[in-house]
Amino acid sequence: MADSGRSEGVTRLEAFSDGVMAIAITLLVLNLVVPSRAQLALGHQTLAHALVLLWPSYFAFVVSFLVVGIMWVNHHAMFSMARSVDRQVLFANLILLMIVSAVPFPTRLLAEYLTQGGADAHVAAAVYSFTMLLASIAFVILWLAMTRRPELVRAGIDVVAARSSVRRFGAGLGAYLVTIGIAFISAPLTLVAHFALAVYYCFNHLGGEGPGDG
Amino acid sequence: MADSGRSEGVTRLEAFSDGVMAIAITLLVLNLVVPSRAQLALGHQTLAHALVLLWPSYFAFVVSFLVVGIMWVNHHAMFSMARSVDRQVLFANLILLMIVSAVPFPTRLLAEYLTQGGADAHVAAAVYSFTMLLASIAFVILWLAMTRRPELVRAGIDVVAARSSVRRFGAGLGAYLVTIGIAFISAPLTLVAHFALAVYYCFNHLGGEGPGDG
Amino acid sequence: MADSGRSEGVTRLEAFSDGVMAIAITLLVLNLVVPSRAQLALGHQTLAHALVLLWPSYFAFVVSFLVVGIMWVNHHAMFSMARSVDRQVLFANLILLMIVSAVPFPTRLLAEYLTQGGADAHVAAAVYSFTMLLASIAFVILWLAMTRRPELVRAGIDVVAARSSVRRFGAGLGAYLVTIGIAFISAPLTLVAHFALAVYYCFNHLGGEGPGDG
Amino acid sequence: MADSGRSEGVTRLEAFSDGVMAIAITLLVLNLVVPSRAQLALGHQTLAHALVLLWPSYFAFVVSFLVVGIMWVNHHAMFSMARSVDRQVLFANLILLMIVSAVPFPTRLLAEYLTQGGADAHVAAAVYSFTMLLASIAFVILWLAMTRRPELVRAGIDVVAARSSVRRFGAGLGAYLVTIGIAFISAPLTLVAHFALAVYYCFNHLGGEGPGDG
Repeated sequence: MADSGRSEGVTRLEAFSDGVMAIAITLLVLNLVVPSRAQLALGHQTLAHALVLLWPSYFAFVVSFLVVGIMWVNHHAMFSMARSVDRQVLFANLILLMIVSAVPFPTRLLAEYLTQGGADAHVAAAVYSFTMLLASIAFVILWLAMTRRPELVRAGIDVVAARSSVRRFGAGLGAYLVTIGIAFISAPLTLVAHFALAVYYCFNHLGGEGPGDG
Repeated sequence: MADSGRSEGVTRLEAFSDGVMAIAITLLVLNLVVPSRAQLALGHQTLAHALVLLWPSYFAFVVSFLVVGIMWVNHHAMFSMARSVDRQVLFANLILLMIVSAVPFPTRLLAEYLTQGGADAHVAAAVYSFTMLLASIAFVILWLAMTRRPELVRAGIDVVAARSSVRRFGAGLGAYLVTIGIAFISAPLTLVAHFALAVYYCFNHLGGEGPGDG
Repeated sequence: MADSGRSEGVTRLEAFSDGVMAIAITLLVLNLVVPSRAQLALGHQTLAHALVLLWPSYFAFVVSFLVVGIMWVNHHAMFSMARSVDRQVLFANLILLMIVSAVPFPTRLLAEYLTQGGADAHVAAAVYSFTMLLASIAFVILWLAMTRRPELVRAGIDVVAARSSVRRFGAGLGAYLVTIGIAFISAPLTLVAHFALAVYYCFNHLGGEGPGDG
Repeated sequence: MADSGRSEGVTRLEAFSDGVMAIAITLLVLNLVVPSRAQLALGHQTLAHALVLLWPSYFAFVVSFLVVGIMWVNHHAMFSMARSVDRQVLFANLILLMIVSAVPFPTRLLAEYLTQGGADAHVAAAVYSFTMLLASIAFVILWLAMTRRPELVRAGIDVVAARSSVRRFGAGLGAYLVTIGIAFISAPLTLVAHFALAVYYCFNHLGGEGPGDG
C-alpha cells in the first residue's frame, strides 16, 4: 500500500475489485433458499427430507465459492505486478468484474436444474461452464492489456515468468471448453469437473507464497 | 493513502464511497432472476427458450454495470484532486451515493418492461434516463462543492484542466436529457444510447493514465 | 492510516464498521420493489400510476439513506479520537453495528404501512423511531466506553470538546423520543420528522472540516 | 498496514476476509421479512401482533450477528500474528470464509422453524449448531496451517501464548458439539446456548486490548 513502485490508481483499482469480488462471493448464500413451512405442508415432507433434496444448491454454492475465491487470488497475483493502470486496463478489469459479479446467476440456474435431467439440465450446465470460460477469456485480455506497455509493469517483475504463469491459466481455457462439452453429457458431472479444476488450481497453479508474496 | 497533501477525511470518504459503489454494482446481479421450474412447466417452455426471453435483463445488467463502473472512475478522478472535505462536500457526496445506490431499481424496472411496448416501456425507459440525469447533476454539484474553496484542493492540481474535464462531463447532462426524449420513442433504443454513452466515456473522457495517475 | 497515535486495532475496527455501514446503506435499495407485469394487469393499472403509488418507498429510502449516512459520519468522528480499543469498545461497537445493519427492516416496514392509516401505520412508524432511538443509545454507550480510560484516547484530543459534541448527539435522544410520540399521531409526519432531523444534523452538528479533519 | 513484518499478501487477505465477513453479517437483515398487507388481511391480524410473532427472526438475527462478529474478532486476532501466507493458509482461509458466508442460511432456517416444535425444529437447530461447529473446525485448521512453518509467523509473537489462546477456542468445539445435542431437546434453548457462548467469548476470550493491540 505504501509500496513504492505502485501508483495510487493501482491501489484503488485493487480495492474496488476486491470489494466487488467479496460481495459477489458472499451473495452466493442468497441462492440457499430455506424451504417454507407452507411448502413442506403441501408436499407432506419433513424438513430433513427437504434439506437433503437441496443438495444441488449446497454443491453449487461450494463450487462457485471456490471458483470466485481462486479468481480473487489470481486477480491479486496479476495486479501485484502492476505499476500503473491505463484506460484499457481499467476497461478490461471492469469487464472481468462484470462476469465475476454475474456468477451467482448461473450458480442458481445450475442448482435449480441440476437434477432435472433432460435438455434443461444440460442447458443450465452449459451456461455455467460458458460463464467460467468468459471469465477466463476476460483474465487473458486483462493480462494482455496490463503487459503490453512496459510503463504499466513494476520494476523487478520477471515478465517472462509472469507470462508463463498466465499462460498456464490461459491453458485453462481449453479445460473450460471441455466442461461445456461435459454439460451435454451430465449436469452433475459438469459441477464435479469445475470443483476438480478449482481444487487443482488451488494447489498447483497458485503462487507458492500466496498473494503478493515472493 | 500515505499520500501527503490528502487528509484522512478524504481517504475515508473515498473508502466509504468505493464500498457503496462496489456493492451497488454487484447487487445488479440480483436482477437476473432464474426462471423457476414451475414457471416453465406452466408455460410449456424449455429453459433455453426462457433464458433467451430474459435478454432485456442481461442487456440492462451490462449497461448499468458499465454506467456505475464509469461513475466509480469519475468519482475517483474527482477525489484524486481533493485535499480535504467539508460538510457541503460530505452532503453532496452522500446525495450522489444515494442516486448511485438506487441504480439497481431503474435497471430492474427497464428490464421488466423493455419489451412490453406501449406507455409502460416508455415510462420505464424515462425513469432509467432520469436516474442517470440525476446522477450527472449530483456529480456537477459535488464538483462545485469541492472546488469552491482553495483549501479543499490539493496543491499542484491544475484546477483549470480539472474544470474543463468536468465541464465535458457536465456536457453529458445534455446527452442524458436527450435519452429521456429517446425513451418516448423506443425503450430498447434508450438502453442502446446509454450503452453507447458508457463506451464513449470509457474511451474518450477517462484520464489517459487511469484513476489517480498522472 | 499511517497516522501515529492510532493502533492497528482502531484502523481495522473502522474498516469493518465502514464495510457494514456501506452495505447496510446500499441494501436499502432492495426495498424499492418493481411492480410486476402480472400485478399491473390484475389491477388494470399503468406503470406510471403504480410507480407514483410507491412514493412511500422512495421517501423511506431517502430518509434512511441520510440517517445511516449521518451515522457513518458520526461514527467516523468518534473513532478519529481513538488511540486503541478494548473489549468493551469492541462489544459496544458490535451492538451499534447490529442496529445500523437492521435499519433496512424498519425502513421497509414503514414504506409498506405508511399510507395504510390506522393502528398498523402508527406501529410501523413507532418501530422506525424506536430503531433510531436504539441507535442513538448505542452511540452514547459506545462513546462512554471509548472515553472511560485515558489510554483509549489519542493524545492532543480535546476530550471536553469531544464530550460536548457527543452530548449534542445525546440530546438527539430526546428528539427521537418525540418522534415515537409523533408516530401515534401520523406515520408520514414521523418520516418528515426524521428527514428534518437528518438534514439538521448534516448542517449543524457535523464537524466543520468533515470526518477526520481538524 | 505500513506495519513492518507483515507482507502485502497478509494485508490483502485480511481486507478480503473483512469484506466477506462484513457482508455476511449485514446480509442477516434480509432474514427479517416484513409481513405483507395481504398476509395480515388474510389472517385478520394486526401488524403489532404479526411483528411480535416474528420474535424468532429477531432472536436468530441477534445471535448470528454476535457469532459472526466474534468470528471477525477471532480472525483478526489470528492474522495479527501472521507474517506471510502460503497456499495452504489461503485455502484454509477460503474454506473458513465459505462457512462464515453461509451463516445467513441456517439463521433463516432456525428462525423459520424455531417455534414449529417437533422434528423440524430439532433439525433446524441441529443444522445451526453444526454450521457453528464447522466454523470452529475451520478456525482450528486455519490456525494449524498458519503456525506450521516459522516463516509464516511474525517475529516477536509468543507462539506458545497464541496457541494456548486458540486452544481455548478449540475447546469451544466441545461446546458446539453439546449444542448439537441440545438441538434435539429444544430449538429455542439451542439459540439461547449460542447466545450465551457468544457473550462468554466476547468477555472472556477476546484479547484484552482488542484486535491487533498488545
